[in-house]
Amino acid sequence: MSIKSINVRNQFRGTIKEIIEGPVLSEVDVLTPSGVVTSVITTRSLKELDLKPGREVIAFVKSTEVSIATL
Amino acid sequence: MSIKSINVRNQFRGTIKEIIEGPVLSEVDVLTPSGVVTSVITTRSLKELDLKPGREVIAFVKSTEVSIATL
Amino acid sequence: MSIKSINVRNQFRGTIKEIIEGPVLSEVDVLTPSGVVTSVITTRSLKELDLKPGREVIAFVKSTEVSIATL
Amino acid sequence: MSIKSINVRNQFRGTIKEIIEGPVLSEVDVLTPSGVVTSVITTRSLKELDLKPGREVIAFVKSTEVSIATL
Amino acid sequence: MSIKSINVRNQFRGTIKEIIEGPVLSEVDVLTPSGVVTSVITTRSLKELDLKPGREVIAFVKSTEVSIATL
Amino acid sequence: MSIKSINVRNQFRGTIKEIIEGPVLSEVDVLTPSGVVTSVITTRSLKELDLKPGREVIAFVKSTEVSIATL
Repeated sequence: MSIKSINVRNQFRGTIKEIIEGPVLSEVDVLTPSGVVTSVITTRSLKELDLKPGREVIAFVKSTEVSIATL
Repeated sequence: MSIKSINVRNQFRGTIKEIIEGPVLSEVDVLTPSGVVTSVITTRSLKELDLKPGREVIAFVKSTEVSIATL
Repeated sequence: MSIKSINVRNQFRGTIKEIIEGPVLSEVDVLTPSGVVTSVITTRSLKELDLKPGREVIAFVKSTEVSIATL
Repeated sequence: MSIKSINVRNQFRGTIKEIIEGPVLSEVDVLTPSGVVTSVITTRSLKELDLKPGREVIAFVKSTEVSIATL
Repeated sequence: MSIKSINVRNQFRGTIKEIIEGPVLSEVDVLTPSGVVTSVITTRSLKELDLKPGREVIAFVKSTEVSIATL
Repeated sequence: MSIKSINVRNQFRGTIKEIIEGPVLSEVDVLTPSGVVTSVITTRSLKELDLKPGREVIAFVKSTEVSIATL
């Protein structure tokens, strides 16, 4: 199923740099213009989406999940 | 209290571009090298941190909150 | 930008039943085969996606956000 | 401790179909009227709640965690 | 519907100290032995649960949502 | 990088009691005045922060992640 657009404002386009596969969850590191963005998804989804290093993806996150720190 | 470091791998340093203040929650738009990152935090925290447009901040998010989409 | 597929396993297709619009965040109630699924998104996203009652959408959520209770 | 009710609007009653147990986190797949809802919880909670395939449970999620996509 | 137990390990029992009601979301401040725990829930849930200052409640959060910082 | 302050209202200072290390994610149990607070973070972060039992840390969580139940 193709999705036209999603409500998520924070989208980071990049290339998968590395995958650490676990029994239930896996870490996917995506190289973006802002540096590496790390995502943790189920290993099932990893396989269903056929994610592999070098593949172009979008990492995204809901605004309500983003925190702010001052320096 | 000063924090030395946090476990959150995804940190985006930038400058506050715009704030939309609501009665309970507020939207903070942060201009980063990857574009605008949008955060929603309580209006109380907005005031306690004295956030204002132009102020330098870090937007951050836990890896378990980041999703992946293929193009 | 069209997205081919996302990692999120929990997808609920339905029709928007009601929208409660706030200054920063809005509530979107989606009628699905399992009943009403409630989503809270930024009012900016609501307008950008041009969401209105009657429109067909997919409500989705990451597996790490889902809790389990016993009866 | 018995809980009378919770604020979470999105509740999906169903039967556990499958469990994938990991060292720290486990995946619990719940068969509901809307299809399978996948939850990831700590393996400690899995054992404390004595979750097993066939057991009736409620999968639930906060509204702020639910995203919306258009087709 | 009464729930027997939930998978959420982090539960903080306390008394509601203050409520800030917004059009879509409301802030509920709960006084616990560790200090005030702040929760943001939909205003609909606030009314359905009939939450008011002085009422005893449990604030809870999934382990995957908890971050760690060093001092 | 030292962070001056963060927007997260819910902060629980305590001592690490136990760590369960997994291949991708690890569980960190922090003993606080309210009891044990459980956090799940990436094993990479665990190692980068050099977390070990006995170390003093702050467990924190965004208000939008906190749910409320009545008794």
